[in-house]
Amino acid sequence: MIILGLDPGIAILGYGVVKKEKHKLKPIDFGTIQTSKELDEPQRLLSLANSLEKLLDIYNPDVVAVEELFFNKNIKTAITVAQARGVILMVILKKGISLYEYTPLQVKQGVVGYGRATKLQVQTMVKTLLNLEKIPKPDDAADGLAIAICHNNFSAMNIISQKAGWSK
Amino acid sequence: MIILGLDPGIAILGYGVVKKEKHKLKPIDFGTIQTSKELDEPQRLLSLANSLEKLLDIYNPDVVAVEELFFNKNIKTAITVAQARGVILMVILKKGISLYEYTPLQVKQGVVGYGRATKLQVQTMVKTLLNLEKIPKPDDAADGLAIAICHNNFSAMNIISQKAGWSK
Repeated sequence: MIILGLDPGIAILGYGVVKKEKHKLKPIDFGTIQTSKELDEPQRLLSLANSLEKLLDIYNPDVVAVEELFFNKNIKTAITVAQARGVILMVILKKGISLYEYTPLQVKQGVVGYGRATKLQVQTMVKTLLNLEKIPKPDDAADGLAIAICHNNFSAMNIISQKAGWSK
Repeated sequence: MIILGLDPGIAILGYGVVKKEKHKLKPIDFGTIQTSKELDEPQRLLSLANSLEKLLDIYNPDVVAVEELFFNKNIKTAITVAQARGVILMVILKKGISLYEYTPLQVKQGVVGYGRATKLQVQTMVKTLLNLEKIPKPDDAADGLAIAICHNNFSAMNIISQKAGWSK
């Protein structure tokens, strides 16, 4: 089973692809989809949608797990990221792929087992669980992998999050 | 020239279609695209995208004008509407249609000539300008028409808003 984890954003969308083989998780790919600052906002949304469609075509994931937004910042940033997130959710559903959503707290719990874990603790656990030589860079890509691992661990525990389960 | 005005939302998207003939504006259609409460949020986004694509195919507008979000409400609502708005912008650009954005203040200025106009003043002006028998219902549809009229009036005055001009 192929799991794709996504950390939504308009400038940088972080992604991580893992494969579950029996009880082992194998890293397949991780990285980012970036949109140019030269583009206007709606054009960035279209660029993001096109790149994400290609990524889905390449890895053909069985499941996509997307992090939910958490905002204590300004509303303008929230709206910009939410617009990108809407596009991301729509593209996934349009492909008919099962979609799950996890809060930042759930991602920490799912990966480290502790909701107040630091970013470094999460990244170190990602490195260990996937047998990587070092912590994946940039942070957005590491977050993408963390979200994929989170989904794997929640479903292995037969926990289906309240927020999860938007299957087609 | 066909202008489509859109008032973004996830439950109800208001739309208004007007045709500019010489210096006259003719109402072509107005109404709403609604998504079922029975659907999960990502499914509503997909349903919205599919219906909007159909609407664009039916009227083949030269220009789409979309209202910007204005929020003094809670952040959760803002994020939900912004996700829908992101999908709307992306669908329009994907069709290669010119896209313009106006703030609620600009819509009032563009239709009534006064940024602090009431909803009823805007709706009465929509009715008068388009020679309608009564004020269009529901409010979302009237808003869609107001946004289309706003774009027409701004462009007739050769005013290209700072926020406008995301042409393909």
